[in-house]
Amino acid sequence: MIRAAMELFAERGFDRTTIREIGERAGVDPALIARYFGGKTQLYLATVREEQGTATPADLLEEERLRTLVERLSRRGPGPSFQAAVMPGDSTEVQQAARAYLHERLVEPLRERFVTEQVDRPQLRAELAAAAFAGIVLARSSGAFGELAKTGPEELVPLLHDLLAASRPTH
Amino acid sequence: MIRAAMELFAERGFDRTTIREIGERAGVDPALIARYFGGKTQLYLATVREEQGTATPADLLEEERLRTLVERLSRRGPGPSFQAAVMPGDSTEVQQAARAYLHERLVEPLRERFVTEQVDRPQLRAELAAAAFAGIVLARSSGAFGELAKTGPEELVPLLHDLLAASRPTH
Repeated sequence: MIRAAMELFAERGFDRTTIREIGERAGVDPALIARYFGGKTQLYLATVREEQGTATPADLLEEERLRTLVERLSRRGPGPSFQAAVMPGDSTEVQQAARAYLHERLVEPLRERFVTEQVDRPQLRAELAAAAFAGIVLARSSGAFGELAKTGPEELVPLLHDLLAASRPTH
Repeated sequence: MIRAAMELFAERGFDRTTIREIGERAGVDPALIARYFGGKTQLYLATVREEQGTATPADLLEEERLRTLVERLSRRGPGPSFQAAVMPGDSTEVQQAARAYLHERLVEPLRERFVTEQVDRPQLRAELAAAAFAGIVLARSSGAFGELAKTGPEELVPLLHDLLAASRPTH
């Protein structure tokens, strides 16, 4: 099921993939998937966890991590954890899972860097960078920004890196 | 009607204000408002236009503009033009209006600055900064980021300014 979900999310992105299609590809009853994972969002988060393993990731200011992430998001679309960053919260279990994931994978590694660097307001700076990143990732697939959407990871990553790096104090 | 809408949007934010309530406060039939403006989004855009006048605004790297904007958004909530930046597009007339507004008020002034500064990829850099700004503005009201939500404009604006300024080349 995880493999079928991974393939479909990668092919079509989160929004255009249904539980029914995942069930069909996996040869499993869609109702079973829904019951087992709790919904499409949680299944998506399971595929992301599976792909990334459980190790704490490098932070967004590591250019390699940034590049890998931007490339994957360009193929697969942003998915629910990024939407949870900017959508008003109804605080369902699913949205809480997406938010926890966002903090664990994006905010916390940056906060740790800023603490180590003895920068003031490490939590605020980490959240600021993560929110900026979520906005850019979502804007790339929203259709609102033509130039941002058509620029590939190769050109985008250095610009994005410079922008996010400015979440650190410059003076 | 515009004045009633302004007051209500400022008191409750975009999402929690209804056309019916605006009609009640203005003493006008809500159906009339819907017919005249085309919907809540377009009414919202009309109030923003009314408040800002028609002059081309300064760009986001002007600290005064940034401060005014962040303060207003803290009172009033982000509204549909920011949501249009990150939400997948169904290309309705309303969403097109919100996007056009976003480009006219945020992207275009920055692009002009970058062209004047003879920076490469002015359109891409302007879109990148506008998307980052939209992400941060939306994240402040989404409930996903505690520290970002509770930090007031006074502390936030300098950090935000440094981040957005990094959409310019640093070398």
